[in-house]
Parts: sequence; structure tokens; C-alpha cells
Amino acid sequence: MTAYFTEEGSVDAVNARMGSDINPRLAEIMTCLVRHLHAFAKEIQLTQEEWEIGIDFLTRTGQICSGERQEFILLSDTLGFSMLVDAINNRRPQGATENTVFGPFHVVGAPVRQMGDTISLDGKGESCLFEGRVIDLDGNPIAGARIDVWSDNDEGYYDVQQPDIQPKWNNRGIFVTGADGWYSFIGIKPVSYPIPDDGPVGQMLGHLGRHPYRPAHTHYMVTAEGYQKLVTHTFVGEDPYLTSDTVFGVKQSLVAPFERVDDGATIWRSQFDFVLVKKDSAGTR
Amino acid sequence: MTAYFTEEGSVDAVNARMGSDINPRLAEIMTCLVRHLHAFAKEIQLTQEEWEIGIDFLTRTGQICSGERQEFILLSDTLGFSMLVDAINNRRPQGATENTVFGPFHVVGAPVRQMGDTISLDGKGESCLFEGRVIDLDGNPIAGARIDVWSDNDEGYYDVQQPDIQPKWNNRGIFVTGADGWYSFIGIKPVSYPIPDDGPVGQMLGHLGRHPYRPAHTHYMVTAEGYQKLVTHTFVGEDPYLTSDTVFGVKQSLVAPFERVDDGATIWRSQFDFVLVKKDSAGTR
Ligand SMILES: [Fe+2]
Ligand SMILES: [Fe+2]
Repeated sequence: MTAYFTEEGSVDAVNARMGSDINPRLAEIMTCLVRHLHAFAKEIQLTQEEWEIGIDFLTRTGQICSGERQEFILLSDTLGFSMLVDAINNRRPQGATENTVFGPFHVVGAPVRQMGDTISLDGKGESCLFEGRVIDLDGNPIAGARIDVWSDNDEGYYDVQQPDIQPKWNNRGIFVTGADGWYSFIGIKPVSYPIPDDGPVGQMLGHLGRHPYRPAHTHYMVTAEGYQKLVTHTFVGEDPYLTSDTVFGVKQSLVAPFERVDDGATIWRSQFDFVLVKKDSAGTR
Repeated sequence: MTAYFTEEGSVDAVNARMGSDINPRLAEIMTCLVRHLHAFAKEIQLTQEEWEIGIDFLTRTGQICSGERQEFILLSDTLGFSMLVDAINNRRPQGATENTVFGPFHVVGAPVRQMGDTISLDGKGESCLFEGRVIDLDGNPIAGARIDVWSDNDEGYYDVQQPDIQPKWNNRGIFVTGADGWYSFIGIKPVSYPIPDDGPVGQMLGHLGRHPYRPAHTHYMVTAEGYQKLVTHTFVGEDPYLTSDTVFGVKQSLVAPFERVDDGATIWRSQFDFVLVKKDSAGTR
């Protein structure tokens, strides 16, 4: 093998250059990445001008990033890469609640509330009773499960996107189950919203003939001692973007019923059980 | 086929989302890119934490970019991707001078000089007479060929990297051949230098056990009416980095003789012929 670069031997030329005493997992990842990157350029016969467009796109994607904006996560999300990584790392047995993308809008430290409390502090939007159980694969209730919930407001924004608008912690809260595994709280029926689309990723979606919308959903992170962490959403079934979520987050099993009740207390009711899997369970990684 | 994302069907889920009336080449490129990106994550079983490290790396790579610094090009260069794109787009028949990477230090508008002139305006470094011919594949001289040459100074910097140091256009110039195709000028024997390594790409090279050096080289862009543009370097044969160029730019055929002459005029002499290929030639794209 020559030490010099050739078109045919491009992958070996690069990968053979790595030191022998480096982190073995890093070596494995980079070797694989170089192989797939080069295969892409060879298969598509990438031109110099296309390469320049790619360099410019990546540069602009990095430069729009800030404390409040993470355009590379948007890029990963809109290429289905985030969902793929989520899927690879959260394989679960049949019957368990499926994971979906975490998203950028979770905030640590939301207030712990009592069962039945409301998280809709601004009173805007269509009120909805969310309730159900946290159970294991055999249907047994899980006590002490912590349900961290967050959703957008009636205009499609998370509170962190509108830092000047009070009250703080609007549409967020944490609920802890008792012996029956039951949870219930008042929130709002969420609404669909576009991901931030005024940057390079929005331009990309435009060129690809894609819209930037996510179907209406409520975010959950459910944790319990001895069980795998569940990061998921529930989706509103009739949403027009349900089959075209711009970040590919929808799974059939996560589409929840939203039943119109108009019972004086709330307009809607949505029941959904979270089925957790023990930490050492098979079928998972 | 379901409209929802699955681990197995991840590529189809993303690629089926593209609009039907978009730029067909863009569709082809993105479809291929998504396929290879997902194949990478699946093959390596990328973890969530590794994904986060990757997002952070790309973000920092974008954020260090400026008018004077292009870290994504450095990334492409150090992964052999730039050389691969160069190779794909500049396949040439046997006997033609091979291309290599353009690099970031070319400047448009260097002064046109007379044959035999010097481009070493600061008088520093080991003087070298560069000479040879611009010819076609049959060995016929090419008149009116424009040789744009640039190299680093005795400290390993291009003039644009030291904008405060005069004279301007040090170690740069353009020479135009006459009927005999002959060129000659005085420059310096170039020295090896590191690519900018105080950013994310430098950190990556460190983690991969790689050094950031390029072997000593002189840059050329040779153009002539009716011939393909040649972008190349000549390399100094005994350079310690010759077989480990951090951007993989070396090709055996581009290693030029540097003969010690000490003839009173210059210390070194390097002769190299540039063999150009007609624009419509076979074996090229
Ligand atoms: Fe969301
Ligand atoms: Fe250079």
C-alpha cells in the first residue's frame, strides 16, 4: 500500500494515518465516518462547486448557533438523524411505550405539582385533562414515577422561546405517582408549530419542498427507580402534520386519544398509559 | 410503506418526504447523503452521548470560521475529502501533470512578472531557480500559458497570513510563456508548515494521533487557452512530512527535484514540466 493518496485508495489513505494508541471507540467511529463520507462523494461524483456549496452551508449552520439557537440539532432532526440515534439507543420490547426525540425545549427544575393541578398558568388555549397510569410490562402500577411534562402554548411557543412573557413555568410541571401509578393534571391541547426556519435549515427545507411544521404534541420524560428513562411525546391524532412531522418524531403508538368532554372543568380529555421497561431488560441496549 | 419513522425504514422515511418538483441534482445528492449518514449511525451504533459530542464539534467548527479562517475546509482537507473531490473532478490521462488541492492561500491579482524575475521580495529563505516547460501530452510547447505561483516564506507563512509584514506579494507572481513554452523564475525552497491547529480540527488531529504539518511545497495554477486548468503543487523530495501530509495532497508524480547548485545566483535549482491536457480530452470529466 502506497503512503500517497489515490482516488481508489482514499479511505485507506486517511484511516491508515490514525495513531495506534488513540481511543479505540474514536478510531472505530472516525474510520466508519471517513468510509461513508468518501463513499457518498464517490457515488454522487460530487463536483467542486457542490463541495463549495456544502462548505458554505455547514459554515452558516454553525454561525447561526447561539445559546438560544442550535441549528446543527435542527439539521440532525430534519435529516431524521436524531430520530435514528434515538431509535438505536432505545429499542424496547413489544408493549413498552416508545421513545421519541427529546427536542431542545426541556428545562431542568420545573415545579413539582400535586395530582390534578394545572400547568396552564396563563389560562390560554383549550383546556385538557391528561390522565393515565405509569405501569410495567405486566400492567403493575409503578409508584414514585416522576412525570416531567412540557408543551407549547396556544400560539405554538414554549415559555423559553418567549422569556419576556410571564408567568414562568407556563405549561410545564412534574408529577410523582403514588401506589396506584395514576397521574392526572390539567394542561392544554397542544398546537402544531414550525421549528425555527429563518436560518440555513429552513432554507434547506424550502429547497427540498418540505414544510417546517411539527404536529401538535405534549412532551414527557418519565423516570422511575430501576426502570429505563422514557423520553417521548403524545400526539394529537387529527393533526394535519401527523404524517409529515418535519423531525420524523411520530410513532403510531404515540398518537393519543383526545376526547371532547366539555364537562365544565375542561374541554378535552386525553388518557395515555406510560409503560416502562426494567433497566436490565432484554431487547434493549 | 408507513408514513412513520422506523429504525429499519429510516432512510425511506426521510427521502420520501422530499418534494417532487425540486432540483433533481439536489434531490440526488441529499438522497445519497441521507443514505450514507444513516448507514454510518447504524453501522457504528452511535450513542446519544457520541451524537452530542458530534453536534458540539460541528458547532465549534462553524463558530471559529471568519473571513480569515475556514475551519470546515480544514476539516474537509484533513479527512481527505477535499483531495477526493479534487481527484473525482480532475481525472487525467497518463503523462499529464496531476492536480492537487487548491488550498486557502491563493490570492487573485498577483503581479505579472518577466521570465527570470524573482518573487522572493524579502530576500529571506534559500534561493531557488524554478524552471521548466509548459507542454501538451505530445511534448509540444504551449505558448501563452499563464503560471500563477505562490509559496510560503522562510518561516512557513503565506503573505496573507502576515498582513502587517511588507512587502506585499512576497513569494507570489504570474509568468506567461512564450513560443518555447519555457518558464523560469527565482523563488525560495519552500518549508513545511502546520495548518492552523488551535481550533476544533487541531483538537481532532490531536485525538487521532496525527500531526498538523504539510510537507514543503510550491503552489501552481497553470492555465492556457483550450487546455484544462491545472491546480497543483510541487513538493520537496526529502521533506520529513512527505508521506504524512495532513491534507493528503502529495502525489508521487509531483515530487520535484531540488538540486543544490550554489552557483552564485541561487542555492537550489528545481526543474519541473507542466503537462496540460486539452479541454475535450477523454479520461476526464
Ligand atoms: Fe415540541
Ligand atoms: Fe500551501
